[in-house]
Amino acid sequence: MPFRSVLKFGTVLRVLSFLLIFESIFMLSGVFVAWYYNEPFYYILLSFLITAFVGASLYYFFGRNKKTSIGKREGYLIVSLAWVVISLFGSLPYLLSGAIPSFTDAFFETISGFTTTGASVLSDIEALPKTVLYWRAMTHWIGGMGIIVLTVAILPFLGVGGMQLLVAEMPGITPDRLHPRVTATAKRLWGIYVLLTIIEILLLWLGEMDFFDSVCHSFATMATGGFSTKNNSIAGFSPYTQYIIMLFMTLAGINFTLHYLALHRKFKKVWENQEFKTYISIIIIVSLLVGFGLVFYMDTGIEKAFRDAMFTVISILTTTGFVTVDYYVWPVFLWIMIFALMFIGGSAGSTGGGIKIVRHLLLIKNSFLELKRALHPNAIIPVKFNGKAVPQNIIFNVMAFFLIYVTIFAVGTMVLSLMGYDFETSIGGSIASLGNIGPGIGGVGPIENYGFFSIPAKWFLSFLMLLGRLELFTILIVLSPAFWKQ
Amino acid sequence: MPFRSVLKFGTVLRVLSFLLIFESIFMLSGVFVAWYYNEPFYYILLSFLITAFVGASLYYFFGRNKKTSIGKREGYLIVSLAWVVISLFGSLPYLLSGAIPSFTDAFFETISGFTTTGASVLSDIEALPKTVLYWRAMTHWIGGMGIIVLTVAILPFLGVGGMQLLVAEMPGITPDRLHPRVTATAKRLWGIYVLLTIIEILLLWLGEMDFFDSVCHSFATMATGGFSTKNNSIAGFSPYTQYIIMLFMTLAGINFTLHYLALHRKFKKVWENQEFKTYISIIIIVSLLVGFGLVFYMDTGIEKAFRDAMFTVISILTTTGFVTVDYYVWPVFLWIMIFALMFIGGSAGSTGGGIKIVRHLLLIKNSFLELKRALHPNAIIPVKFNGKAVPQNIIFNVMAFFLIYVTIFAVGTMVLSLMGYDFETSIGGSIASLGNIGPGIGGVGPIENYGFFSIPAKWFLSFLMLLGRLELFTILIVLSPAFWKQ
Repeated sequence: MPFRSVLKFGTVLRVLSFLLIFESIFMLSGVFVAWYYNEPFYYILLSFLITAFVGASLYYFFGRNKKTSIGKREGYLIVSLAWVVISLFGSLPYLLSGAIPSFTDAFFETISGFTTTGASVLSDIEALPKTVLYWRAMTHWIGGMGIIVLTVAILPFLGVGGMQLLVAEMPGITPDRLHPRVTATAKRLWGIYVLLTIIEILLLWLGEMDFFDSVCHSFATMATGGFSTKNNSIAGFSPYTQYIIMLFMTLAGINFTLHYLALHRKFKKVWENQEFKTYISIIIIVSLLVGFGLVFYMDTGIEKAFRDAMFTVISILTTTGFVTVDYYVWPVFLWIMIFALMFIGGSAGSTGGGIKIVRHLLLIKNSFLELKRALHPNAIIPVKFNGKAVPQNIIFNVMAFFLIYVTIFAVGTMVLSLMGYDFETSIGGSIASLGNIGPGIGGVGPIENYGFFSIPAKWFLSFLMLLGRLELFTILIVLSPAFWKQ
Repeated sequence: MPFRSVLKFGTVLRVLSFLLIFESIFMLSGVFVAWYYNEPFYYILLSFLITAFVGASLYYFFGRNKKTSIGKREGYLIVSLAWVVISLFGSLPYLLSGAIPSFTDAFFETISGFTTTGASVLSDIEALPKTVLYWRAMTHWIGGMGIIVLTVAILPFLGVGGMQLLVAEMPGITPDRLHPRVTATAKRLWGIYVLLTIIEILLLWLGEMDFFDSVCHSFATMATGGFSTKNNSIAGFSPYTQYIIMLFMTLAGINFTLHYLALHRKFKKVWENQEFKTYISIIIIVSLLVGFGLVFYMDTGIEKAFRDAMFTVISILTTTGFVTVDYYVWPVFLWIMIFALMFIGGSAGSTGGGIKIVRHLLLIKNSFLELKRALHPNAIIPVKFNGKAVPQNIIFNVMAFFLIYVTIFAVGTMVLSLMGYDFETSIGGSIASLGNIGPGIGGVGPIENYGFFSIPAKWFLSFLMLLGRLELFTILIVLSPAFWKQ
């Protein structure tokens, strides 16, 4: 596949036509929700018709590009456009229902959903019709589906950010052509995603949640999104419900290929996975530290202290963003640990966002080895991950990813402060959007929302969400002049 | 030079004995200051005697290790111990005079001097005897001398943080043995350092400063230190004096090998140096941005606005830390630009601290190339600096440096917050110490001092200053278990 081939726009549009038809089918399911709850259904039906019509038209004109294989170049463009295009059409239900009349706000809420960020412009969520709340949760769930396939199948093929490491984990994947891999991986992993979602719905339904809330919260949990149907997120629910959500946030933050291996009883391989071990260790250690802090400094009851601590740690580490407690009123040394988790993120191949644990692992290992290399300049000392030597170009890739991530975070903070926001709001808004978390610190703290940002700021934050969700490189490559040179 | 040879402690102690004798001679010069200003001189004489006695004793016992060459391993240990040992003895004048009665405070002030940080525990500087103020400025000047030789001659030999790049710039340096290189480089660059210091003293003396203040401020400027003899730093001096200090801070932040080239009329080579061009561009662009901001948002007069902006930009970028204005009361979007400069730092091979401009340049270039590499995975695309391809292991080294730097900054912030300091003070204290700057944000803002920190916090901040000054690796390697294995 030589890169300097002509960019096949037809192929790109053909794939986008599929995505729109796919999205419209999910919208159609909203019509049944409206019918069941006796709500007006014209706006969700109209959204379905518009999306389906545009999708079908695109397919009519570009569907014949079937035989041309999808190259790397088309891959970058499809991925970059996919989230933008489905967000444009996905904002129709908000606009047509009048739930969110401003286009900027509707697009922000939708891309926040599809990128599984969970940052909301809404202050009174409970006032919305159930159909809109359903679609809001659905944007998370669709986004989560996209991300699993993206990180496990598409990004390794595109060579983005060291994601090649994941390929070896997944049996039966051919790394040289995109199409068969996507299909095979999607089938396997979506099965697990759907299965876990159903189990969570049932377990939540067993508690005090009704069926509707169980579905919406399960969609948001498995996608590590964070949209709730309640104004105070998960704070009002029972400990049982909170523990169930904790469990499934944790599962959603694990590499889905490990779920696949576990289902095939390859538990040893799961247990020996270094990213998995680190992920579990971080949750346990930071939860204990924060929990003890809450007991001693905030006079919280022991069970509630450790539940709040663990819920917050899992919610932020997995980049879900559900909230049971306002961590921003804790002493600085407690919330700064939560803040630090925002820079870690979930596991690669999960629905979680952020830098990802595997990258941090590789970087920490490499840093220690760099000290060794200084002492033994002639020795070749490779980084090992899960017992195998990691090629130097992947380490290079991961390092570049980290650098660009930190740079974008810093630039994001400066841009927000230039727009007039205070220091902590600028820092919080930048990392919470780029890391697809939702709640941050300052004006975007856990009990705040993003409604107060200006129109340019909302577009800028939407761009940060997209950048973070697509692992930076995808968007940056498409925006680079070199990409467009023939 | 095989690394697994026995660590020659005798050689290490022999070099340290020289450093102590060297330090004691500078202390002796303080006796003349005390005599000239009719101040008591017992404490500075006693400090000289103790330091000289210990130095001479060490030389008596270990001076015979003359013929053994200094290997890499000894190099790391000498560099790491040098700043600690001279700071221990350098705190004697503060302790014996009673100017700073606490050992922690005296050591903090001294290591802040020798690392050219300029963070002070003193609130009333003008109350101190001239002899103490002289020694305080002298710690900067000695520190600056050490740093030039360290970064241009010793660190490239030790393979730390990409400093190898500097070696090619300096003619007549043999990269395979440490001793002759250090001597030759020291002679050339110290000559320039002394010359620039003398010119600055004369130019400052021409203004309203007396000879004593001219000397002390010139010592602090050329070392990019920041200790002033006045309580409100440079704010009380005339525009003329401020412009002179700006000029010499700028000169001190330039790679000293470029001064050497300029003296030999190789102006073309200076002008084509990419780090130099970037350094000048940053100063001009950020000064203009901040200056316009001050004119429009702070109603400052035009000349004063641009003078304040430029002075602050140069002072922070070069990590000097002199202050003419409290930038922390500016609107956030203005001081956040100053804050961002704290993460850049001066040029490599200058007396400035921080990450250094050359590292940022290499990282930015490499990040852009990484996007290109994703599109052309089989092409070998090296980073170019000053027209030459940079070996991959240096890029690797620089990336590891940046990662460790950011990690230490983050850990530093968390440790300070755990000690009870607020968010901005923790961030400010961490970067201002690690970057050898002095003033930061929050409780360590430009008009504050470090006196309020607890004893453990002061030792921790001293450690950060040392880590930053010795380019991280030196200290980390000596602290790693691998270093001590035979």
